[in-house]
Amino acid sequence: MEARQARGWRMLRRPAGALDVRDFALDLRDLPPLADGQVLTETRYISLDPYLARMMRSWEGAGVGWSEGIVQGRLVAQVAVSRSPLFNNGDFVLGFGRWQERDVFEASALEKIDAGGAPPQSALGVLGASGLTAFVGLRLAEIRGGETVLISAATGAVGGVAGQLGRLAGCRVVGTAGGVEKCRHAVEGLGFDACIDHRAADFPRQLAEALPNGVDLLFENVGGPSLDPALPLMRRQGRIMLCGLAAHYQSEAPLVLANFKALLHRQITLRAFATADHADLFDEGLRVLRAGLASGRIRRDETIIDGLENAPAAYIDMLKGGGIGKRLIRLS
Amino acid sequence: MEARQARGWRMLRRPAGALDVRDFALDLRDLPPLADGQVLTETRYISLDPYLARMMRSWEGAGVGWSEGIVQGRLVAQVAVSRSPLFNNGDFVLGFGRWQERDVFEASALEKIDAGGAPPQSALGVLGASGLTAFVGLRLAEIRGGETVLISAATGAVGGVAGQLGRLAGCRVVGTAGGVEKCRHAVEGLGFDACIDHRAADFPRQLAEALPNGVDLLFENVGGPSLDPALPLMRRQGRIMLCGLAAHYQSEAPLVLANFKALLHRQITLRAFATADHADLFDEGLRVLRAGLASGRIRRDETIIDGLENAPAAYIDMLKGGGIGKRLIRLS
Repeated sequence: MEARQARGWRMLRRPAGALDVRDFALDLRDLPPLADGQVLTETRYISLDPYLARMMRSWEGAGVGWSEGIVQGRLVAQVAVSRSPLFNNGDFVLGFGRWQERDVFEASALEKIDAGGAPPQSALGVLGASGLTAFVGLRLAEIRGGETVLISAATGAVGGVAGQLGRLAGCRVVGTAGGVEKCRHAVEGLGFDACIDHRAADFPRQLAEALPNGVDLLFENVGGPSLDPALPLMRRQGRIMLCGLAAHYQSEAPLVLANFKALLHRQITLRAFATADHADLFDEGLRVLRAGLASGRIRRDETIIDGLENAPAAYIDMLKGGGIGKRLIRLS
Repeated sequence: MEARQARGWRMLRRPAGALDVRDFALDLRDLPPLADGQVLTETRYISLDPYLARMMRSWEGAGVGWSEGIVQGRLVAQVAVSRSPLFNNGDFVLGFGRWQERDVFEASALEKIDAGGAPPQSALGVLGASGLTAFVGLRLAEIRGGETVLISAATGAVGGVAGQLGRLAGCRVVGTAGGVEKCRHAVEGLGFDACIDHRAADFPRQLAEALPNGVDLLFENVGGPSLDPALPLMRRQGRIMLCGLAAHYQSEAPLVLANFKALLHRQITLRAFATADHADLFDEGLRVLRAGLASGRIRRDETIIDGLENAPAAYIDMLKGGGIGKRLIRLS
C-alpha cells in the first residue's frame, strides 16, 4: 500500500521583516498516483540553508510551488516505491523538493547518493553543496600556501569546510564566529589558527590583532558586520570571495560600509560566485573532500534536529546563529 | 640669472569636511641652488586630479612635503636651466611636484614629453594617466565587442576616454553625468550611445530604460550614487571595474548601498585597480590613444583655467563637477 498523503510546510504570508514561526503552516496534502518513471520517496533529512530565507520572504525561486509559498529545499530521501529502472526500493537519493514527509518525484530529477563510507546526509553537507561551495570558492580564489585567509561564519556548513581546506592548503586561517563557544570549536575542533568572536565589544581591534600581516583572501559568508571591519585589514591586491550574505537575507535594509574605500585604495578584487556555475570542479572537489573525511583531516560537523514539525523553528534558530556545521532536520 | 624664489600652495589646516579655498595659502619659497644632475623648471600645467583630495585632507601621500601640507600633483614643466645631460633648456617634462610656479628637480625624477603632434599638456590627460587609466581599466575587464558598458563621470578625464575606447571596441556605451549639458556633450561630442543625468529626479528609472538588456561592464568613477542604481541592472557574471570614488574623496561618511546584494545574486566581480600597477600595458595604451587622437576618433577634452592663484578654487570646482575632460591650471 502506498501512503497517499503527506504533511508538509507552506508559508502563510510573505514575512514583512524577519521570519517568524507563525509565518509557516504544516498542512496535509494528497499525493498524486505514482506513474511510470516516478518514485515515491520518504524524506530522511532536510537541509537548512541560509539562502532559502530569500525565497521564503519573496516566494520566488527555482522549483515548483514557491509562487504559492510552498517551502522547498535540498533533501535526502529514501525510495519507498520505485517505478523507474534508475532506483531500487531503499536507495538513498538527493533532490530539491518540498519540506514534506514523503513525495512523488520524477526519477530523473533525483540523484543516487554515493557517500562512500559516510552517512547519506553527508550529501547535503561536506560531500554536497556546502563542501563544494567551500572548495569552489577557494579554487576560484586561487588560494596558495602561505597566504592568510579570513573566513566569516567559521563554524558554518561552508565556513568550517573552507577553513579546514585552507589549512590543508598550507594557509594561516583565521575565522570569525558568533560567541566564545563557536570560536573555541573553530580552533580546537576545526584547526583554525585563530577565531574572533564578532559579538565582542572590541571585535575590530581583536580582528586586527589576529591579523598583523593583513589578509590575502577573505571568504565572506555573512555581509556588512564582518566585511566592513575586514576591509582595512586587506593586503594590497587582496581578494574577497563573496559566498553569502547571511546577515542580510531577512532584511531589505541597505548595506552600510564605512570602509568601502579600502577596496579602491588597496586594489581589491571582490568576486561573488554561485557554486552551481562551476560544475566542472565538482568531481575534483568531491575527491578532495572524501579523502579529507577518510583521513580525518576534514571533520563532518552536523547539527541535527529531529522532526518535520520543528523545521521552521530550527530554520529560524539557524539564521540567528544556532548550531554549527550543517544544520539538518531528520525525519524518522 | 636663476629665479631664486617661487610662489606655491600649501594647506593651512587639515579640512574637517569638504575642501574650502580658505584651507589653502599661497606663499613665497626660496629655491635651493641648482646642483649637478638637477634642472630648474618653469611650471606650465598643473593637473587637477580628484584623488588628490584624499592627500589634501590627510596630509599623507607619495612625494616629499605632504606631511607639512605642501600641495603636490602631476604637472608639465619646461626646463629653464639644465645641469643634466638628460634635458636641454626648453624641453617639456612630466613630473610629480609642488603646486609652485618654478622648482628644482633631480633630472632623473622627470620624464621628457613626447606627445607626437599633440600639445605637451596631453601628457597629463588623454596621453597620460587619465587616458591610460581608461585603457588599462577596459583591458583588465577584457572588454569585448557587442557588450554593453556603463560609465560614470562620462565627461570626466577618464570616463570620456573610456567611453570613446569602448565605442572603438564595438560596444554599446551608456554614460552618466551631472547635468543636461554634460550628457549632451557625452553623446554629441564623445559618441556615447546614451547618457543619463544623475541629477534627474527619476535617475534610476531613466538609467534602467537606457539599459534594457542590462550591463556587462560598469566602469565606476564616482561611488555610491552611481554604483547603487547600477547594481540591479548588472547582467549575471557581469564585471565592475572600480576606478575611482570621486563622490567620497571629501567625506568619511560610510557608503550606503541598498542594492549590494545584487553582487551576490548576479555573481558579479568587482575589481579595483591602480593604473600604476599595470605599466606593462602603457606602451600599447599610448599607441592606441595616439592613433585615436590622430584619426580624430578620440577627442582631447580639456578645461583650462589660467593662473596659479586660481588653483584651489578650480580644484574645488572640479570636485563639484565643474568642467569636462582633463581639468588643468595653466601658468604663463
